[in-house]
Amino acid sequence: MIVYPHIYRKLKRGPQVILPKDIGIILSYTGVSKNSVCIDAGTGSGWLALSLARVSKQVYSYELREDFIAIAEKNMKILGIDNLTLKLGDVFQKIDESDADLVTLDMPNSDRALGNAYKSLKVGGMVAGYLPHTEQVKTFVEALNKEGFSDVHTVEVIVRDFLVRKEGMRPTNMGVWHTAYLVFARK
Amino acid sequence: MIVYPHIYRKLKRGPQVILPKDIGIILSYTGVSKNSVCIDAGTGSGWLALSLARVSKQVYSYELREDFIAIAEKNMKILGIDNLTLKLGDVFQKIDESDADLVTLDMPNSDRALGNAYKSLKVGGMVAGYLPHTEQVKTFVEALNKEGFSDVHTVEVIVRDFLVRKEGMRPTNMGVWHTAYLVFARK
Amino acid sequence: MIVYPHIYRKLKRGPQVILPKDIGIILSYTGVSKNSVCIDAGTGSGWLALSLARVSKQVYSYELREDFIAIAEKNMKILGIDNLTLKLGDVFQKIDESDADLVTLDMPNSDRALGNAYKSLKVGGMVAGYLPHTEQVKTFVEALNKEGFSDVHTVEVIVRDFLVRKEGMRPTNMGVWHTAYLVFARK
Amino acid sequence: MIVYPHIYRKLKRGPQVILPKDIGIILSYTGVSKNSVCIDAGTGSGWLALSLARVSKQVYSYELREDFIAIAEKNMKILGIDNLTLKLGDVFQKIDESDADLVTLDMPNSDRALGNAYKSLKVGGMVAGYLPHTEQVKTFVEALNKEGFSDVHTVEVIVRDFLVRKEGMRPTNMGVWHTAYLVFARK
Repeated sequence: MIVYPHIYRKLKRGPQVILPKDIGIILSYTGVSKNSVCIDAGTGSGWLALSLARVSKQVYSYELREDFIAIAEKNMKILGIDNLTLKLGDVFQKIDESDADLVTLDMPNSDRALGNAYKSLKVGGMVAGYLPHTEQVKTFVEALNKEGFSDVHTVEVIVRDFLVRKEGMRPTNMGVWHTAYLVFARK
Repeated sequence: MIVYPHIYRKLKRGPQVILPKDIGIILSYTGVSKNSVCIDAGTGSGWLALSLARVSKQVYSYELREDFIAIAEKNMKILGIDNLTLKLGDVFQKIDESDADLVTLDMPNSDRALGNAYKSLKVGGMVAGYLPHTEQVKTFVEALNKEGFSDVHTVEVIVRDFLVRKEGMRPTNMGVWHTAYLVFARK
Repeated sequence: MIVYPHIYRKLKRGPQVILPKDIGIILSYTGVSKNSVCIDAGTGSGWLALSLARVSKQVYSYELREDFIAIAEKNMKILGIDNLTLKLGDVFQKIDESDADLVTLDMPNSDRALGNAYKSLKVGGMVAGYLPHTEQVKTFVEALNKEGFSDVHTVEVIVRDFLVRKEGMRPTNMGVWHTAYLVFARK
Repeated sequence: MIVYPHIYRKLKRGPQVILPKDIGIILSYTGVSKNSVCIDAGTGSGWLALSLARVSKQVYSYELREDFIAIAEKNMKILGIDNLTLKLGDVFQKIDESDADLVTLDMPNSDRALGNAYKSLKVGGMVAGYLPHTEQVKTFVEALNKEGFSDVHTVEVIVRDFLVRKEGMRPTNMGVWHTAYLVFARK
C-alpha cells in the first residue's frame, strides 16, 4: 500500500508516476524556488512537472506521446496550474529554452539528453535524473562528467510509513523499497 | 559524512538543523506552493524556514532564543530571502497569524503547540511535526487526534548516498540513519 | 512478494513465522553454536526453533497451544530434526531447564518471562526478544535492566531483494519493511 | 559506530571482516547445519569461516596470504575452534574437497571461482557470494547462470541499531549503510 500525500490523491495516473518521496528530494536537493525556470522531460502523468510548477516561476515539460500530455493537462486543471507549458517534442533533438535553473529527466536513455540539458541551463543550474537501474546510473554519471557537469551526487530515497495506534507504533509491514535512483549535478 | 546539496553548503549552522532529506519530504507531503503562507517554530538555524520561504508566499518563524534568530538572519542574507519574518515569541502562548496553509513544528513538547497551530490554519491546511523519538511521535499523534486533525501520517525519511566510480557503484559505507520522524496531518 | 530461502519453502506456516532475515541475525548476534542448549517460547510454527535446532545441541520450545505444536511437529519431520523438544507449557510459570546458552522469546508480554529466562541461563548466556512494536521494546529493555542483564542491544533487520536481469539491476519495488525489533542481552 | 555482538568483540581484525549482519543472513539463507561441510575463500581475518565452523561439521578455508592465515589462526584459538582447516591455496586453480554443502566466496573476481565451486558442491548445495559493487553482482550472477546454478537470489542486509533510553527510543544517528551485496544460488 502506498500512502499518497493529500494533494496527489486527486490526480490522474497514466504512465508510471514519480512518487512524492522522490519529488520532495528533487525539490530540496536542487533548491528550486519561486524564481526558477524548470525544464522537464518526459512529462508522463505530469506529477513532477506539476509539483515543480507549484513552487517555481515557469515549467516547460516535454513529452513524445500526445495521450500522456492529455493526462497531464487534466491534472493541470485539477490543481489549477497555469505556469506549466506542456510541449510535444523530443529533448534529444532540441530544448528550446535557455538560462534554465533546473532540468529534470525521467525517460529512457536520458543520458543522451544531457548535452542539450547543459546548453539550456544557466551556470549554476541543476540537472536531476530519475533512473530505475544501476546500469543507467553509471551511464548517466559518465555522460554528466563528459558534458562538464560538476557536483555529481547519486542518492536513493526511502520513505517508510509508520502505524501509530493504540496497540503500538511500528513501521508498516510492507512498503515501497525502490522506485529509482536520483542523480543530481550542477552546470 | 553528510553530503549537503549545493544551496545548503553556504549556510551557517548553530543549533541542530533539519536536513534537506526531511525538508524535501515536508515540501512534497504538505504540498506547499507559491501561494502558501507558512508558520514555523522553532526557527533554530532557519534551514527549514528558509527552504519554505524559497517556495512559498510568506513564512513566519517563531523562536525563543535571540542568538538563534541572529544565525537565521545571517542565513536569510546569504540566500537573499525577503519573505521570511523572524519572530521572538512562544507558540505555546500565541500564534499571531491565521488562515495559514502550513505549520511546521520542530521544538521540544511540540504537541502542546497543536491547539494554537490548529487555530492558525485554514481548513485543509497542514501541520508537520519533526520528532526524534518514538515516544514523542505517539504523544504528538494523540494530540493531533484530540485537536481534530485528520489524515495523520507518520514517516521516516532515509536518503542513501551512492559512490559511482571507475571501480564500481555502491552505497557509501556509513551514513545518516536517523534524524527524526515526520508526522503530517490536515485541518 | 517475500522470497524464502530454499530450506524454508517446504515448511508449513500456521501462526505468523519469524522470517529468515530475523533468524539469521539471531544466530549471528547470539553466537549460538553446536554446543549450545537453547530455550524458545512460543513455538508458533516452529521456524525459529527448527533453525536453532539445525545448528545447536538441543532446543526446548514452549508453546501454550496444542494446534501450533502439531504444526511445528510436522515441520520437524519435514526437516528431519531430532534435537528439538516441543513442550506444552507456560514460561511465565516455569522454565524447567537450566544452564542454557540462549533463550529466545517471541510471544505477547515476553518481558514477564525475563525473570524465568534469567534463571534458566548460564552466566554469559544470551536472551533474544522479538518485538513488533516500539512500546514493547521499551518495556522489554526496562525489564532486562531490572533483571540484571547486560549488553542490551536493540536492532531492526532489513533485507532487500534485488532483481539482477538483462534489463538491469535494481531492488524490487515492494518488500518487507518491518517484522519486529530484535533485542539482545547477556546474563 | 559499529556495535559488535559479544562473541566477535574479542576477535582480531586484519583485513576487512565480514560483519555479523552479513554472516547471520549467510547462515539462515543457506541453511547451513551441524551436518554441513563448508568451503570458504578467502579466509581474511576468518570471521566468516569461524562463524561457519561454530555451527557446521567442518570448514575448509582458502587464503592466498600467509599473514591473513596467521590472524585467522589466532582467532581460531580465541574461540577454541577445531573443525576449521586453514589452507594456503588458490580456489581459481583448485578446490580439493567435494560433496560440500556450502561454498562462500569473499574475494576479488570471485565469479572466476564458480566453476570450481560448482564441482566441489553436492547437488542441492549452496554458494554465497559477498560482493561490494553492483557491477560485481552482475558479473557474478551471469557466471552463476552460465555454470548451471539455480535459485539465484541477491540481497542487501541492513541492520539498524537503536537507542532505548530514558529520554526515548530512536535509531542511532549514523550507521553502516553498506558492506556488500550477498548473492545466493543452489547447485
